[in-house]
Amino acid sequence: MDVSPEKIMKRALALARRGKGKTSPNPAVGCVIVRDGAIVGEGWHRKAGTPHAEVHALRQAGELARGADVYVTLEPCSHFGKTPPCADALVEAGVGRVFVGMVDPNPKVSGRGIERLRVAGIEVVTGIREAECRRLNEPFVKHVTTGLPFVILKSAMTMDGKTATASGDSRWITNEKSRRYVHKLRSMVDAIMVGVGTVLADDPQLTARIPRGKDPVRVVVDSSLRIPSGARMLHQESPATTVVATVSEDRNRIVKLESAGAEVLRCHAVMGRIDLRDLLARLGARGVQSILLEGGSELAGEALRAGLIDKCVLFYAPKFLGGAAGLGLFGGPSAERMDGCCRLKDVSVRRFGDDVMIEAYPEDLCLPGS
Amino acid sequence: MDVSPEKIMKRALALARRGKGKTSPNPAVGCVIVRDGAIVGEGWHRKAGTPHAEVHALRQAGELARGADVYVTLEPCSHFGKTPPCADALVEAGVGRVFVGMVDPNPKVSGRGIERLRVAGIEVVTGIREAECRRLNEPFVKHVTTGLPFVILKSAMTMDGKTATASGDSRWITNEKSRRYVHKLRSMVDAIMVGVGTVLADDPQLTARIPRGKDPVRVVVDSSLRIPSGARMLHQESPATTVVATVSEDRNRIVKLESAGAEVLRCHAVMGRIDLRDLLARLGARGVQSILLEGGSELAGEALRAGLIDKCVLFYAPKFLGGAAGLGLFGGPSAERMDGCCRLKDVSVRRFGDDVMIEAYPEDLCLPGS
Repeated sequence: MDVSPEKIMKRALALARRGKGKTSPNPAVGCVIVRDGAIVGEGWHRKAGTPHAEVHALRQAGELARGADVYVTLEPCSHFGKTPPCADALVEAGVGRVFVGMVDPNPKVSGRGIERLRVAGIEVVTGIREAECRRLNEPFVKHVTTGLPFVILKSAMTMDGKTATASGDSRWITNEKSRRYVHKLRSMVDAIMVGVGTVLADDPQLTARIPRGKDPVRVVVDSSLRIPSGARMLHQESPATTVVATVSEDRNRIVKLESAGAEVLRCHAVMGRIDLRDLLARLGARGVQSILLEGGSELAGEALRAGLIDKCVLFYAPKFLGGAAGLGLFGGPSAERMDGCCRLKDVSVRRFGDDVMIEAYPEDLCLPGS
Repeated sequence: MDVSPEKIMKRALALARRGKGKTSPNPAVGCVIVRDGAIVGEGWHRKAGTPHAEVHALRQAGELARGADVYVTLEPCSHFGKTPPCADALVEAGVGRVFVGMVDPNPKVSGRGIERLRVAGIEVVTGIREAECRRLNEPFVKHVTTGLPFVILKSAMTMDGKTATASGDSRWITNEKSRRYVHKLRSMVDAIMVGVGTVLADDPQLTARIPRGKDPVRVVVDSSLRIPSGARMLHQESPATTVVATVSEDRNRIVKLESAGAEVLRCHAVMGRIDLRDLLARLGARGVQSILLEGGSELAGEALRAGLIDKCVLFYAPKFLGGAAGLGLFGGPSAERMDGCCRLKDVSVRRFGDDVMIEAYPEDLCLPGS
């Protein structure tokens, strides 16, 4: 067996991915224990409140863990949470060396788990496939370092870049495979967010309609409380909350929405509209680590220009609206010159039948300007 | 060696592709001769006026061609052109069987080469990898069956579907790799076409700036002769002609353009503008089999709505213009409902660094409507 640390960390990453989207508020973590060139223990974190990856792997390895090499995608924890510290468990098991993908991004505990291991005389190597380990838990990393949720802009366009006709018709742009994938994306985030324009135009349910899909919190950005009390997103048989974010003080509307089961969240105003950063901070403070931003154009444009979009998932469907009319991905002002564009990096492409999905990350300070 | 006809035809296709874009007005053709499970001869057509693929392969095979299996991507010719008929050469060489990718699409000669072989007692199997063989020579097939050139729409967009800023700035959207590929595309077509708006905005050279690139005919669609006599496309040191298509009768302008070296082509008018189908027919009649349509939006929209676009080559660059302003791929009226879109088929995706290129084919009767 090839025991290069990169190879084994790749395996640990694959294990970690099995928990992806299911461990919030915890990160997804994978662990592999290798002894004499053979894997003797494997584990991954399945769900918050249950044992961490290292504990599963140690259990599987049993006595073979003594003197063995441990590969873990994230620095082992050093504090008592719902479970005892993994760093202690590794020390007690007498492991030989620990290879760490990335240090804990939480500034309050970062490096403590590694310190605990080193003090116990265990050799620790860090930074193995670090970029991949960070990417695996990008919402967790963003949230723990900034307090803000990781915002994923999802959109579906025709290949001439239209998200809806001039009259607002957008059903359906993409094929069933793509739409199924979107439901999977929804079930992996903590919240879905749309602008009230999208609610008025499409009356979406905003639920994850796949088997065992977990419904995220539904958030509508609605500065002046235009959402109808009969909107479908307010009346889903789902344990997930609907949050109506607003700057309105219309008691009458607020009471109506609250009695329809929604939570009305008052935010700071900027020029009479919701300060999106404030809204995100409020959601982050209540533990929302990831948000799928599903439009419409106005909200997407505002979020982009505020530098609040972390990742884009863009579907291009094999069709042309064929003219100048129709809506595009973003509303509001554009860059005035091509070299003022917001740049994207780390592009990846995936196909769902004849739909093409492009994932990309806006560069830091990606603010379209002139 | 695996001697399934599909496998060997794949090899013949690979050979044919070496001539792609260089054989006009002839199609690209590849030929493989197999005897006792081994390839004994290979060839491809390199350039009009030089020997056909079969002749190269027969020469290489020599006496081994007797009784052998011949694989050829296109039906062997039966007529004397610049070279003698290949069907006769195959008969004379005494080959055993002939496997044909596609029959000759030219309605005047279609099937005659096969007939000639069969009359001579040679077994002929047709339709091996036929779709790929047709695709390889799609411009030739379109031209020979309709008299019209095969029109490839090429465009470059930001990932939010913008081809230029509101002020018309479009330099550069794509990266160098993509732009190099566009020069390669140019060197493979018989003509490049742009609208006069693009000439006024960008003053492009419209040449194939790659080593050994062959400049195509440059065509500007200019109903009212707005092109300045100083436009760069009129003053390239290139043997290729510049055609200014118009419906204008302004003698003064015409003489000026002609003395600048351009050819002014009068076309039928529809509502005072060039009838694009008439222009294409005129170009087709003078042997133009393929056209790269490079914009702008107005011309692209008009061509799409007239059902004149055969293929699209769309580059999506990793950037956002970020708002509602800016130009899109198409100008003019759009479909009014999503299900009125023009549909695309046979989508393929290729990457040039972080640029994503999507190729697709508008479906027959792809006319965006309501």
